[in-house]
Formats: sequence, structure tokens, C-alpha cells
Amino acid sequence: MDRSVTADTTTLSTPSTPSTPSTLGPSLGPFLAPRNVVIVGASERSAWSAGSFSNFARLGFAGDLHLVNRRGGVVHGQAAFTACTQIGEPVDLALLLVGAEAVPDALRDIAAAGIRLAVVLAAGFDEIGEAGRELQEEITELAVQLGVTCVGPNCLGFINLLDRVPAWSGRMPELTPGAMAIVSQSGATAHTIAAFAAQQNVGVSHVVSTGNESMVDTTAMAAALVEDERVRSVAMFIESIRDADRFRALARRAAELGKPIVALKIGSSALAAEIARSHTGALVGDDRLVDAALRQLGVIRVRSLEQLVTTAGLLSRTGPLAPGGLGVVSMSGGACDLVADRADSSGVRLPVLAEATRARLGTFMPGFCTPRNPLDVTGAASARPELFRDSVAALAEDPDVALVAAIHVHPTEERGEVMKARLRIHAPALSGAGTPVVLLDQTIATIEPGTVSNLEELGIPLAMTGLDHVVEAAGHAIWWSDWQRRDHRRTPASPDPQRVGDGREWSEAESLALLEHHGIPVVPHAQVFSEEAAVEAVAGLGLPAVVKLVSPDVVHKSDVGGVVLGVASPEAVRLAYRQVLTALEAVPGARSEGALVAPMRSGGVELIVGVARDAQWGLTLAVGLGGVLVHVLDDTALRTLPVDDGDVREMLSELRGSAVLDGVRGSKPADRDALTSAILGIARLAEALGDDLESLEVNPLRVEGLTVEALDASVIWASPAAEPVSGPVSGPVSGPGA
Amino acid sequence: MDRSVTADTTTLSTPSTPSTPSTLGPSLGPFLAPRNVVIVGASERSAWSAGSFSNFARLGFAGDLHLVNRRGGVVHGQAAFTACTQIGEPVDLALLLVGAEAVPDALRDIAAAGIRLAVVLAAGFDEIGEAGRELQEEITELAVQLGVTCVGPNCLGFINLLDRVPAWSGRMPELTPGAMAIVSQSGATAHTIAAFAAQQNVGVSHVVSTGNESMVDTTAMAAALVEDERVRSVAMFIESIRDADRFRALARRAAELGKPIVALKIGSSALAAEIARSHTGALVGDDRLVDAALRQLGVIRVRSLEQLVTTAGLLSRTGPLAPGGLGVVSMSGGACDLVADRADSSGVRLPVLAEATRARLGTFMPGFCTPRNPLDVTGAASARPELFRDSVAALAEDPDVALVAAIHVHPTEERGEVMKARLRIHAPALSGAGTPVVLLDQTIATIEPGTVSNLEELGIPLAMTGLDHVVEAAGHAIWWSDWQRRDHRRTPASPDPQRVGDGREWSEAESLALLEHHGIPVVPHAQVFSEEAAVEAVAGLGLPAVVKLVSPDVVHKSDVGGVVLGVASPEAVRLAYRQVLTALEAVPGARSEGALVAPMRSGGVELIVGVARDAQWGLTLAVGLGGVLVHVLDDTALRTLPVDDGDVREMLSELRGSAVLDGVRGSKPADRDALTSAILGIARLAEALGDDLESLEVNPLRVEGLTVEALDASVIWASPAAEPVSGPVSGPVSGPGA
Repeated sequence: MDRSVTADTTTLSTPSTPSTPSTLGPSLGPFLAPRNVVIVGASERSAWSAGSFSNFARLGFAGDLHLVNRRGGVVHGQAAFTACTQIGEPVDLALLLVGAEAVPDALRDIAAAGIRLAVVLAAGFDEIGEAGRELQEEITELAVQLGVTCVGPNCLGFINLLDRVPAWSGRMPELTPGAMAIVSQSGATAHTIAAFAAQQNVGVSHVVSTGNESMVDTTAMAAALVEDERVRSVAMFIESIRDADRFRALARRAAELGKPIVALKIGSSALAAEIARSHTGALVGDDRLVDAALRQLGVIRVRSLEQLVTTAGLLSRTGPLAPGGLGVVSMSGGACDLVADRADSSGVRLPVLAEATRARLGTFMPGFCTPRNPLDVTGAASARPELFRDSVAALAEDPDVALVAAIHVHPTEERGEVMKARLRIHAPALSGAGTPVVLLDQTIATIEPGTVSNLEELGIPLAMTGLDHVVEAAGHAIWWSDWQRRDHRRTPASPDPQRVGDGREWSEAESLALLEHHGIPVVPHAQVFSEEAAVEAVAGLGLPAVVKLVSPDVVHKSDVGGVVLGVASPEAVRLAYRQVLTALEAVPGARSEGALVAPMRSGGVELIVGVARDAQWGLTLAVGLGGVLVHVLDDTALRTLPVDDGDVREMLSELRGSAVLDGVRGSKPADRDALTSAILGIARLAEALGDDLESLEVNPLRVEGLTVEALDASVIWASPAAEPVSGPVSGPVSGPGA
Repeated sequence: MDRSVTADTTTLSTPSTPSTPSTLGPSLGPFLAPRNVVIVGASERSAWSAGSFSNFARLGFAGDLHLVNRRGGVVHGQAAFTACTQIGEPVDLALLLVGAEAVPDALRDIAAAGIRLAVVLAAGFDEIGEAGRELQEEITELAVQLGVTCVGPNCLGFINLLDRVPAWSGRMPELTPGAMAIVSQSGATAHTIAAFAAQQNVGVSHVVSTGNESMVDTTAMAAALVEDERVRSVAMFIESIRDADRFRALARRAAELGKPIVALKIGSSALAAEIARSHTGALVGDDRLVDAALRQLGVIRVRSLEQLVTTAGLLSRTGPLAPGGLGVVSMSGGACDLVADRADSSGVRLPVLAEATRARLGTFMPGFCTPRNPLDVTGAASARPELFRDSVAALAEDPDVALVAAIHVHPTEERGEVMKARLRIHAPALSGAGTPVVLLDQTIATIEPGTVSNLEELGIPLAMTGLDHVVEAAGHAIWWSDWQRRDHRRTPASPDPQRVGDGREWSEAESLALLEHHGIPVVPHAQVFSEEAAVEAVAGLGLPAVVKLVSPDVVHKSDVGGVVLGVASPEAVRLAYRQVLTALEAVPGARSEGALVAPMRSGGVELIVGVARDAQWGLTLAVGLGGVLVHVLDDTALRTLPVDDGDVREMLSELRGSAVLDGVRGSKPADRDALTSAILGIARLAEALGDDLESLEVNPLRVEGLTVEALDASVIWASPAAEPVSGPVSGPVSGPGA
């Protein structure tokens, strides 16, 4: 065989044109299934090398595995090449176990051998500060020049369980192949997640760690994984979302394919955000906004490693659930109590059983049992296992039950034949024709191999542990399945033809006019240029009135005495006009544009509606209650734009002080349709203004019954010269050129 | 030996006088350590019997175990007696495995044999409704007559691991002896908790189930267990607290002994409360009040079975912690992020490291590591395990660290010698001289026997799993240790010598006078009986004023037009006086006691301070914000009486709208000392009034700066004829007579 083989693109359909980050993701797919692999830096003295090498045999890798050691010789019982160029056969992937200083030479060698893809274990780059950062830039530049795509550096690589490829540095955990993919920047955390999945008997398709992400990040990896039809859910451990647009594209694609992304996104505390910045170099965005953005994208956010695996593991086995809530059957009243409390605190719906289900239960349950959900079949089911079986079957067929948790100890080896005999009777109901049924052990425990084989022998497809975690996972699965069914096609607002951005902050009069022009209800008002005109305007608008200064140079008009409230007579209007104009004189060089008069409002509820530009997520809508409530409660709902009618309604109901909208102390309840429509109008306007807009705030937006009106507004335009604002950290560099 | 042995009180110091429920608890101690046991209803055909019998050998019971079967013969390979009276030797305890219908005869037999204590497995009593309830009353009455104390019926009994007594129906789980006691009404739940403790390598002293609690409840059992010096914490699963006074006594005694009670009290949801009522027959109290009451008693409340074992298990091994927070060391940045988020959401303090600790870390940590808490020693510690060891030691010696979590995988058999070699280096730091150190595996998993022996071999005393659960448990342990250090001696208010209860609702004038008499600040006011007197009084009090009707027969005076606000002139005062007196005429037969005049107040913050009688917990203090906030937020803090200064301050800071007290929109911040003192005065007054009081409400209590005053008040007296109100369900019946 010719030993001077160069790039053989037939071995793998790697990207042949320079990839942009947004297209790199899906095209990484073939990368994750290399046919032939070389370990560079294989050495008897390295535990990493021994571990990596042994993985190939353990997993049953079907391709050729080559070893490269600078000195050649026999390593791990196999003859090693002294360089990749010596292999003389096409190789798809190189696992680089060499130290940081040897990476450049190794990259040159693999490129020369026609290998286009590398997993780089070496640490000592970005994560150690300035010196490492330079080195990382160097190798990245080199890799791009050479046309090699690197995963890492400072990563453990990936395991593809389905195609039996352990491109993993060091010994991999024992795993069962399955449909849940694991993606994490940190290799240690990926390992921890995978090990927990194994303990919970959750099958895994891939384990991916991206390390310092010099070229490939978790978003790109997840984008490749969702395209694999064998992958049914993706569990992501996320320290920072570096590129919101690419993450959005990933989430949309996953939704299209009906595959959930479950994210353990850290950074809910200021301390965690600080830590993440120091060990990943990436900024962690405003956590409340991250929360809102993920929810809008249909990404399930969880708060612990156990939750991550339990939720993604459940959905990898059930797929999307039918409409409905969680049904629960147990022989223990205590377990039913715990389920009820947990479901309540986690917002998981336990549907009331249908009349027909209750009647069916009544035909076989003892008289002292209550046919409800959660269903306590009592200890009576010890002696009569059919009671449990038939109850599970009845709940599974209830029209409002999407998933059943059958709480029962697992058939462990220790529990022996007694438990198996009982579960043999239950089994037909547990294989869940139609509605999935989980055989649920109350507390989290390792599902031992002996238990797994008993479950297989009994034909029980879905067994999980930990009542708390499974109830919460069920809640997530139900939420996501409902989300999938909703229509998420939001017509983007057309860009405003009358772009008006001029890099400055607009006056109230200008801002209100802009709102009015776009059909958003504003308080009746008039801009006037004389006392006479003011009096005349007020005659039409009604007393009492407010009189406010208008000047392009004064935005915070009340700070200079430019606002007079509760003006009660025509004479007082004159006085007020003079007063605000006099106030202007105190501001050197400020131009006068007269005054704005409007009726003075009282009663109703005041809201603040603002759109601002977030560095990571772009234009963001905030809705909060005004007045004392906003000061006291810091009570604001957030969404990224675009939003639809449903989003705005959800925002209103999310406010802790939401009840004021229903009227307090005899005031008229706010008409939510009218209010929603006004807020949606503001959001659509902001969206249409697009890059021209820096922020738009209506404060207050007053609502009383059917009346909704903006009483004051402010618009700040993006500086015309400014580049579009990008995220705090740019995305990974693009992939290799042709 | 004389076969007609009767009660031999020398075998066991059982209570020899009729026990009240409050004294039964501690005296149950000897009951839990019987020297000789009989299984009544032993039978080859019963799995219960086989299981129970085998437990004695498994646990190494040192006393005599007898079997009774009506037909005699050989059972489980041992000759069975036909009745207890045939045994002819003293026996301390009978484990009754017979059916419900056979219980009365069995009780007579064991009483005749001088056995004073019985564990009753049989179901078919209270829990199956009316018919069972009668049967339970019958056997309870019989037991009392016979002088037999029963645990159950419908219970699994108890296991005393320390004295090797398995008085347990059916096969018991494999357990390690230790210092955590488990108490649960439900036997199935007790079993689940014990099994989880075993999986987590938490040593257990006792497992107790009380079933239907006809004579002995969980409170009594826990009261006995805390007296055992080998018990260091009690884990209770509580469906209902049947007798608040006895539970209080238990909590106080446990606090005295420095032993934590950790309670998983269900019923936080309405559904769970309903389920618990149906399967235990006991009412579940207002959950928010339960929450407050437990906190006041120093009882740790947890929300899951895992939390119960993790928290009680931690404290059973560490004992009370020194002052300080949680220190964390990990090789994984991801784990540090997770700890930070979890600590934040659970309110667990991660202290900032002392300057000296940071300096010490600086001497050996790589330059790119940040010496903070949680401390990420990075993957560098793989190659240099001393880095991890020395970091753990440094944090353990930090003056503000009470407990260290050293996050590291456990030395499982699978991980083999590599992990052990590394942990052998760490071990000296993990044995935590002074400050306890937990070797913490990130996700919850069973700690296998192989891991346990590796830990023992390495000399690592404390290893736990589940970062989330351990952080939360650490928070509980820190809270409880702090609570133990505080002074909880509340001087009870002396009963008021001037008892005035007369079974009716007092008018505002009377109520304000009562408050004033007891030194609680009230708004200046005067009760007047003529227009002239009203005008004269207002001259002294100031305008604007409020004028309100006074009548012992009209309490809701504004409902009849008996209140005029904002009275601005002497003439208006006359008019207002006439108006409220005229309003009285509309109420047939109502007596006039003139009117009350007071200055009209505005500004400041209004609170509602109420004391009401709860059926379960007695007098209860509620403090909430008045006005729109209380309507919108349902924002009230609760405590049972008595309270101290610290409690009231805590209540104020607990209010979600608490920030209004610090002043909003330019209003003066409330003086918290003055406010606390007024609220404490109200609470002490209510306490002094004691049983005479039904409720006392001050609404509003207005505060503005240093000014605190009650603007309106209402007192409702208990009906003089009424018995003191007792809990929804009476305590267990008293123990056996002499």
C-alpha cells in the first residue's frame, strides 16, 4: 500500500468548503462516526493512553486502530508508527494525547497524512490564562491553515456508542447504548453525567466533551447529534451560550425534529456566573433572561445533574407524550402524599380521573379505597397483585393521563423471587400499550445489572428511581410535549419603512407620536407653543391636566421642574405653561419646542413596558407593574423578541402582583385582551425598528377596564455609525477551508 | 420452671402507673429493648412469619425467641407453643402476626402470660373505615383493661439495631447499625427510608413504624428514642401532628439533648392533606403554620425522602456544627458552578475565605487558579493529588468554615487501585480533625459494599453522594446548629390579672382602650357623646379627623355608614357626629355609646397584626402588610405564640413586600425597633389573655419613621362556657394501667 497517502475525501464526507459556525454543526455528523482512528502519543507510561486504547476493544470498535509514538516500538501490545504519515492507510480521526507543546507538530503530521479531524486532550491553553490563550490562538490558526478541524483542546473527546467509536481520552465509563446524547464543555462533567445515566439504566447514544472549544462548541455538537435519527433527546450541560443565534437555530431544528433539548445551564447565582467566567472565559448572561429565552425556544431547563439525566432519559424512551397529566398508582399512602406535595410544588398536573375510570376502578377496588389520582391501592395489593395491575391499566387508559408512574420496588437480585412473582403479574400493565408507564422505585438508587436483567426477563420496558426526580421529569416532559404541539410560527414584523433612528434620545412628544403613528393607544395630548394654545387644548382635553416641557435637549424633564401635575383651572394652565418654559431657561443652550398638555389620569393600574437590547439575546421585552409594586417586588417578566399574543398573556400572568390586574379595592379589572394587544403593538414596533433601536420604554402604560393608554414614553436610537452589537464573546472560529 | 408465670415486672421496667400521653414517650425506652420475644401466629405458610423469624437470626438477637401457633407443632424448624401461657418463661414482647379477628384472643393470651407489650401487624381497623374503627376501639379498650401496650395495629413494628431486636413483621432490610433513628407511621415508608439509608451507608439505630397509633404514636416513639444516648438524630416521616403540645415537648427535649429532629412532614399541598386525612384519619393543619411552628421548635423540615436521610444522616455523624458556612473543594469547574447555584437557591452560605486561608492556598496552587470558595483546584490535581489534599486541609481550618465538601469520585471497586492510590494521599485531610469533611460524589448513587470497605481501609470517615442533596443538607445542619446556639428561653407572659373575657366581640373603643392599657401605642382618640364634645375633642386632636360610631352591638361600623373619613372643619365634625348616630338608628335595638374621634392619618406603611386561635397549635401571630399589598400578595408571616423579639424581626424580614418598610417614593423608613416592640406588645398581651382570648386584630397598625400606632382594633373573647379548644384529633389513648 502506498504510504504517502494524502487526504482521501472518500473516507469521510467532511466539510469541503470553509464552514461558518452556523453550518458547521450538522456537517459534523460524519466526524462523529470515523471508520479508522489513530492514537497519537500512545505510550505505555501514560494512563491516558492505556485507558483510551482499551476503550476500543471494550466497545468493539470495528475499524482499524493505529498507534503513533515518536519512538515507534510496541505499545499496548501493538506495533506503533513513528508518525501518521507512516500509516499508509486512510485514517478519519486522530486522538491527540500529546502535551500542549507537541500539538503543533502533531497537527502538521496528521494533516500531512490526510487526517482532517482531531481530538485534542492537551491542557495548558485558554484555561491557564494569557500565556495559554496565545498558544491556543496559534494552534487554532495552524489547524485552519492545515484544514484540520479540532475538538478541544483541553477536552476528553467523544464516545459514539451507536457506532462503537470511543474517541475518548482515558478510560471511558461502562455505558449501555441508547437514544440519549450527552454534550458538555467539561469532560469531567460529561463523564459524571454518563456514569449517572449508566447507574439509572438510561441508554446513551453519544458522550461529547468540547473543552476549550477553539473550533467546535457544544451548540455545534448538539446540532450534529439531533440530525442522527437514532438520537431521541440531547442532555446538555451548559456553562455559557456563546452565540445566541446559533443556539436558537439548534433549538428550532430540534423542535422541528421533535427531539427535546434538556439543558442544565449554570449561572443562576452571581457566584456561579463569576466562576464560569474564570474557568471558561465566557460571560454568563442575565439568568432570568436565559430562563425566558430557553423557555421560548422549547428548551427544558433543569437544575441538577440527576434532573438532567432523569428528564432527558425519560423523553429518550417515551418520545413526545400525548396530551394530559401524570397518573400515579402506589400501594403506599405515604408515597401518594409525597407525590401530591411534589407535583404541587413543581406545578405538575395530576388530572382528576374521568368518571369512566373511577367507575372501572370501583368494580375491583376494596370499598375503603378512594378512586382518585394519585391512587393508593393500599397494602391490600400485597395479597392481590391484580389490584395494582388493573389499577395501572385503568389509569393508563384514562383520556387525561399522558404518563403513568407505577410506584413499586424494583426486582433487585436481593429482593429475589417473591418480588419477581408479583411483578410478573403486573408486567402486562407496565408495558404500557399507548400510554407509557414507569415502574418507579421511591428513592434514587443505582439500578444494578441484576435488576436490569430481571426487568428484561419480566418484559418491563421503563424503570426509573426517585419519586421526586421522576415527578419533576414528568412535569418537564408534559410541558415540552405541550410546547411541541403549539404553533410557534411567529410572523416577524416587517421592517419599518420609515426608519427614523438618529442616534439620540427622543422627547416624550416625539416618542408618543411614534407610538400613535403605529396604532398604539396613547393618552390624548397636544403639543402647544403658547399659553393661549395650552388653554385651548385643555378645553378640549379636560381638567385636571398635566403640563410638561418639550425640548429635544431635556429628557428628564421632571428633574428640572419641567412637569406640573394636577392643573385644575384655565388660569392654572397658563401658570403651568409659564413655569415649564421658565424651567427650560435653567438649561443652557436647550431648545424649546413648547409644552405638552394632557388630561391628568388617576386610578387603574400602571405598568412599565420596555424593550432593550441585550448583548447576548438581542431585543428583549420587559413587562412589569408600575408604582409601589415594582419598587417593592422587582416584579418583571422578560422575553426575547419576537413574541406572540400567547407570550404576552403568559408574561402578565407570571407577574407576582398579577392579581392587581383583576381589580383591587373596587377598581375595574383590566381588560387583558386590550392590554395584551397594546403590549404586543409595542413589541412589534420595536421589532420593526430593528437595529435602529437601542431601547423603547412606555412608563407608565395605564390600564383601567377597557382603557389602555401610554402616558409617557421614551425612545433611544442606536448610534447610526455603530456596528450591530454582538454577543460578549464571539462564536467559535469557523471550520477548516477547502 | 413455673409455667403459670404472671407479670414479672423485673424483666422490664414498663410504666407501672397509667401513663398520660405526655409521659408515655420517654418511658417507652425499655419497651424498645425487649430481652425475650414471642411471635404469635407463627406459621410455615405465612411469608410474614418466615420473614420475621429469619430476622432474629440475621440480626443476632441475643435473647430467647419463642413461637406460638394455635396448633403447635414445628414451625420454622422450632417447636411452637399453642399459647403464650404455655411458654413458662418471662417474655417482654409479643409480635402479633394474627389476623384482625384473632387479635382480642391473642391479647388475652399474652396478658395472661404476663406480657405487657405487643406489636400488632393486623390490618382491617381504622384504615378501612367505620367497621374497622369500631374494632380498633374494642381492641384498644381491651388492651388498656389488660394492661398491655400495643404498637399498631396495622404497623410493621420496630427494629432496634443497637440491641439487635427485630420486632418487625416480615423481612427487614439489610442495615448498618448507627446513630440515626427512623420513625414513621407508615411501615412501608419506614422500610423505604431505612433501605435508602443502607444504600447511602448511613448507620441506623432504630426503625419504627406506628401504624394506626391506637396507643403509641410517632411523637411518643421519638420521645423515647432521643433519650437513648446512642441515638444522635431522629428522621421522622410525619403525616399529621396529632398533639401539638406533646410534639412541642419532644422538640424541646431533643433541643436540650442537642439532637436534631429532621421531619418530612407531608401536606404542603391541599391534595396531600386530603389523601392523608383519608388514609390516616388525621387532619393535616395549615401547612404554612406547620412550617413556622417547626422552625420555631428547631425542627428541620425537609421535602423528600432523600433529603430526610441525607440531612439526618449527616448530623448523626457530625453532631452539631461549629459556627460557619460550607466550604467546597473540587477538581471540576462544573461542580463548583453547580454548588454555587444550589447554595444560592437553597440559602446556604459559602463563606468568603479568610485572608490567611487565601494566602496559604496561594503558596501551593497553580497561578491560574483563583483561591475562593467553592475552590476549583482544576484537573492539575490529577497529576498532583497533594493539591486537592492541601486545599481541603486549608478550607477545613478556615475560621468561617463549619463543614467541608470535598467533591471527588468514591473509591468504588470498579474504579480500582488508581482511585485508591489517589485517595490514600487525600485521606489525612478527609478525616477532618475538628471540622467535618464529606467526601462527596456528585450524583446520588448507591454506596456499594466494596466502596464501603475501601473507605474503611483508607480511613475516610464520611462519604456521601449527591451534590444537590448534600449542599441542602449542609444548609439544614448549619441552620440547626445556629438555632441550637441561640437562646430559646422565652419568658412566658404572666396571665393578665384583669381578665375581661365575656364571650363577645368588643367595639373599637374598648379594644383600643385595652391595647392602650397594656402599653401598646394607639392613635390619639376620644370617645364622645355629643356634637359639642366631638368638636372640643377634635380641637385637641387636630384636623382632618375621622368620626366613627361606637356601639357594643355594631362591629362592622362602616357597613352601616358609621364611619366618616377626612372630616375637615368643626362644622363637618358636627355633621359627621350626627351622621354616624343616625346610621345607628338603622340597626334595630343597637345601643349607642357615642362616637370615637381621632386624627385622620395618611402616609407611612400600614400593617395587619392579628392573633388567632388555631385548633392544632393554639394562639398564632400573623403579621402582614396592609393595603394593596396584602390583597395582591397574600403576604403574611406566621408564628405560634410565644414569640420573642428575634422572631418578630424575622417575621418582618420574611414579608415579600418587606422593602416598603425601608421607605418607598420618599416616605420615611419604618423604625424596625419601634415596630417590633409594638408587635411584640400585642403578642404578649394576647398570650397573657390566654384561654379568654379567641382573637385580637390590629388593622391597621401604622408605622412612619419612629411613629407606630394602632388605628383600629378588634378583640373577640372566647365564650366563657366553652371548653379550651383542643386539636382536631385527640392524642393517643393513655398507656396501660397498673
